[in-house]
Amino acid sequence: MATSTPFSSYFLQERSFCREPISYFRELALNFSTLSTRNPINLSFERRVFKRSGVRCCALEIKKTPAISTGKMFQLDDVIEAQQFDREILGNIFEVAREMEVIEKNSHGSQILKGYLMATLFYEPSTRTRLSFESAMKRLGGEVLTTENAREFSSAAKGETLEDTIRTVEGYSDIIVMRHFESGAARRAAATAGIPVINAGDGPGQHPTQALLDVYTIDREIGKLDGIKVALVGDLANGRTVRSLAYLLAKYQDVKIFFVSPDVVKMKDDIKHYLTSKGVEWEESDDLMEVASKCDVVYQTRIQRERFGERIDLYEEARGKYIVDCGVLNVMQKRAVVMHPLPRLDEITVDVDADHRAAYFRQAKNGLFIRMALLKLLLIGW
Amino acid sequence: MATSTPFSSYFLQERSFCREPISYFRELALNFSTLSTRNPINLSFERRVFKRSGVRCCALEIKKTPAISTGKMFQLDDVIEAQQFDREILGNIFEVAREMEVIEKNSHGSQILKGYLMATLFYEPSTRTRLSFESAMKRLGGEVLTTENAREFSSAAKGETLEDTIRTVEGYSDIIVMRHFESGAARRAAATAGIPVINAGDGPGQHPTQALLDVYTIDREIGKLDGIKVALVGDLANGRTVRSLAYLLAKYQDVKIFFVSPDVVKMKDDIKHYLTSKGVEWEESDDLMEVASKCDVVYQTRIQRERFGERIDLYEEARGKYIVDCGVLNVMQKRAVVMHPLPRLDEITVDVDADHRAAYFRQAKNGLFIRMALLKLLLIGW
Amino acid sequence: MATSTPFSSYFLQERSFCREPISYFRELALNFSTLSTRNPINLSFERRVFKRSGVRCCALEIKKTPAISTGKMFQLDDVIEAQQFDREILGNIFEVAREMEVIEKNSHGSQILKGYLMATLFYEPSTRTRLSFESAMKRLGGEVLTTENAREFSSAAKGETLEDTIRTVEGYSDIIVMRHFESGAARRAAATAGIPVINAGDGPGQHPTQALLDVYTIDREIGKLDGIKVALVGDLANGRTVRSLAYLLAKYQDVKIFFVSPDVVKMKDDIKHYLTSKGVEWEESDDLMEVASKCDVVYQTRIQRERFGERIDLYEEARGKYIVDCGVLNVMQKRAVVMHPLPRLDEITVDVDADHRAAYFRQAKNGLFIRMALLKLLLIGW
Repeated sequence: MATSTPFSSYFLQERSFCREPISYFRELALNFSTLSTRNPINLSFERRVFKRSGVRCCALEIKKTPAISTGKMFQLDDVIEAQQFDREILGNIFEVAREMEVIEKNSHGSQILKGYLMATLFYEPSTRTRLSFESAMKRLGGEVLTTENAREFSSAAKGETLEDTIRTVEGYSDIIVMRHFESGAARRAAATAGIPVINAGDGPGQHPTQALLDVYTIDREIGKLDGIKVALVGDLANGRTVRSLAYLLAKYQDVKIFFVSPDVVKMKDDIKHYLTSKGVEWEESDDLMEVASKCDVVYQTRIQRERFGERIDLYEEARGKYIVDCGVLNVMQKRAVVMHPLPRLDEITVDVDADHRAAYFRQAKNGLFIRMALLKLLLIGW
Repeated sequence: MATSTPFSSYFLQERSFCREPISYFRELALNFSTLSTRNPINLSFERRVFKRSGVRCCALEIKKTPAISTGKMFQLDDVIEAQQFDREILGNIFEVAREMEVIEKNSHGSQILKGYLMATLFYEPSTRTRLSFESAMKRLGGEVLTTENAREFSSAAKGETLEDTIRTVEGYSDIIVMRHFESGAARRAAATAGIPVINAGDGPGQHPTQALLDVYTIDREIGKLDGIKVALVGDLANGRTVRSLAYLLAKYQDVKIFFVSPDVVKMKDDIKHYLTSKGVEWEESDDLMEVASKCDVVYQTRIQRERFGERIDLYEEARGKYIVDCGVLNVMQKRAVVMHPLPRLDEITVDVDADHRAAYFRQAKNGLFIRMALLKLLLIGW
Repeated sequence: MATSTPFSSYFLQERSFCREPISYFRELALNFSTLSTRNPINLSFERRVFKRSGVRCCALEIKKTPAISTGKMFQLDDVIEAQQFDREILGNIFEVAREMEVIEKNSHGSQILKGYLMATLFYEPSTRTRLSFESAMKRLGGEVLTTENAREFSSAAKGETLEDTIRTVEGYSDIIVMRHFESGAARRAAATAGIPVINAGDGPGQHPTQALLDVYTIDREIGKLDGIKVALVGDLANGRTVRSLAYLLAKYQDVKIFFVSPDVVKMKDDIKHYLTSKGVEWEESDDLMEVASKCDVVYQTRIQRERFGERIDLYEEARGKYIVDCGVLNVMQKRAVVMHPLPRLDEITVDVDADHRAAYFRQAKNGLFIRMALLKLLLIGW
């Protein structure tokens, strides 16, 4: 898709840049990429390296990649809940996430978000999610203000409202990533803030970036979203992860979903009804081996002990029931994958890790690309 | 005030930079601004954008703004207490703060403090103050080392002295911003450190950047400091904020101060005597409406429950007595403002927020500019 | 050692850069230093400043310093324990640390590690060590993801293994600096990670960067490591610091070590046997004055109360026994030094601080240079 442009030749011919040291080109390319991102033209470059005077030099080959839709702002002002995404938006986010994979792999030190400041406002700690967002921001050249004790910030003792806190923090930053213990907090924050808000989980409510990275991982691993067969395994009653995933999969065609879970933590009726209303085929099963042999994705989840209160016996029974081990792997198709939102205990045995179909660490990494994409889209658009 | 200089034309003519891409100019301008700050010449630039070969290009118009006093170091080595500031220093800080407003609004990614490292050494958490300082540093291209558990650093158990801690931390950074629970700690740190120290609050002692941002806000909102009328409302006995503000206002002419507070938290005599000795007119009143109708500034503060111990009844009585609501707004002058150091509870009702005279969130934002100004002044001077 | 190269002249002559503003050269020099580090050629530069058109300009004098071994990768993939270092590796690290001293002193804002991301994964807080590593990374232009509550990350409640945590974090960063409460944790992390791991202390196990900075400090202060006489004073039974130091000193020739400690915390036999097997002379003494008068280094350590449990009486007896005060200083040789890993209580009296032989704060600062060197070596090699 990339083609050379008149501009690049202008550059090479008129300035004789082929005699410059490689770092100079690197600098220029960074400048171009900054330029291209803020003003919607995508430029990439290729270095042809040769030796001169004992120093590695290179010529710059500038390529202009037409942007999806030049100058278009991202459709969303905030990322609050899975319900915001339609098929088109998902496609757009995933396209940018693919670009982010290239940036993360090839160039140390992208400067796309240079000068932007993200506030990580966490009312409860979630180190994994926080590090993922902060890495995303820094991989794009942005900076971070961080707090994991935001409860203290708007201290219950002092009694400041969330709205007042947001009005203060928006003065210090360009985007707010918020984790909260109350459902709906992210929506209230977004309603107040004049800058974008990303929900990094609000209590029992939503965790939309997890939902996005799950769908993105399926797309990347299987190569398609229409026509896929997905097994959701484990705690389907309490996991917002699997509920959001089922919700988003309903936006694609000919999807079939299998629910495999202990009786005490079965998928609730609201999602089942929703799937049916959208024409998505689903069935419940208690035969993990049989389901695994048919599916493109086996999405395993952790049975959470805290959901069982005093009934440790029920917990122990439930957690041991559906384990993904090498036996399950053996019946799975060659190109199928095992996914898991992490952290895992023993619901996937460690010997599975070595199999290329174990996609859960790649899935975690995809969270980085999704968050890079969202930060870029919300801060500077396409 | 800005005028074109020979230097800029040299640049444009001899290098034909009008044919370069916009990012190149951006880069140059950043370099210039770095140059100009460290070597006291202020340069700004203007982009004249035009299309060329399908890429937005621009010409650079470099402008040289004469600095206030070329090469002069800032008068202070540290910022420890309100008593350090005279009228001239306040004026200088405010002038730089104004420049900081421009930088923060116009240019993502100022590089003025690039390569400088600030250590945020907080012996007690104060997320709001910490984020404000860290934002200030990062908005100027500087970097931050942060700790909110500095108590542990010089752990009481291990028994390291504050002086030893400072001697270690100064080896890692270029400036220390310290919050401490003991009055006088900042002064001890400054006496030890070979690098600048900013007091971000030391227990019941001082919080000089809050005092500065309050005076700056009055200057920005009202347009003057001489001849203003200010009502200090709420807890005047315990709030170091209002005490410092009264102290600093005494440096200006024809200031009149009204104290409006419940009996149990009246302004103490030391400040009253000080004001009288400086020729500042003041009076106490229990009629908020009448005072509000005459003042340029109604500075409301929170009644702090923790000051009342067991006497919740006294607290409840005190806190309900002087509320700034739309009734008060209605009698206030058109160009008067309501200020508050935040966080607020219900001593200002939320319906006041929508009125343009509600200045408290702008006031919080001014804290950013004041801190940017102090960081610049202490690290690189004018 | 630095010599001008054809390349530098090419640059100066063909581009007439002597007419550019100083900032432009600064930028170029930064580019070169990036270039030279990633592609193993070391370039430095010298600015000859002159006035032109009222603006300070300069000419660039580029110097090529031959790298120790061009293009050679650092011998180590991770830094886990003192046993990894032989005399050659120590020499190499110290040589780079010396370069780091120059970088830290002369140039604000080295960009050698620009675009690299370090994850500070601390399972227990150690603010001093954390700030030192984070300062090191930022002084070289790198970025940091930080967590001091990593226990929560791989929460015991949730039960994630260290290996799974590492696999996630390595997806977000380029190097992991880990502090852990369990001996051997760093080795496990390194075995899992595809990126370098530095052990910042693992429980009662190792703290290799402390050992390195101790040896480096002796080399810097005394000017040699062969033939030195070192007194290890204080708690020799529990301090991993002194144990590692003794271990590393055995790699040098004609070293003599004196152990001066209360009976309850004497150096253990394993180290004594090791020293003997390596031909290192050692003796125990209870006469601090006599030992101090003969040694190049008096390495004092803190008697840790927590080692004595209920026996406060034994602790009080032990801690008061060997104090380094001005009396000790008076018998010490002119070029000898006092060292201490910090924090100190009263085992070195504060009046010693003013003497130039008090090396402990310089020692803490050397920790910065050693960590800068290790980060550079592990991330980009020579």
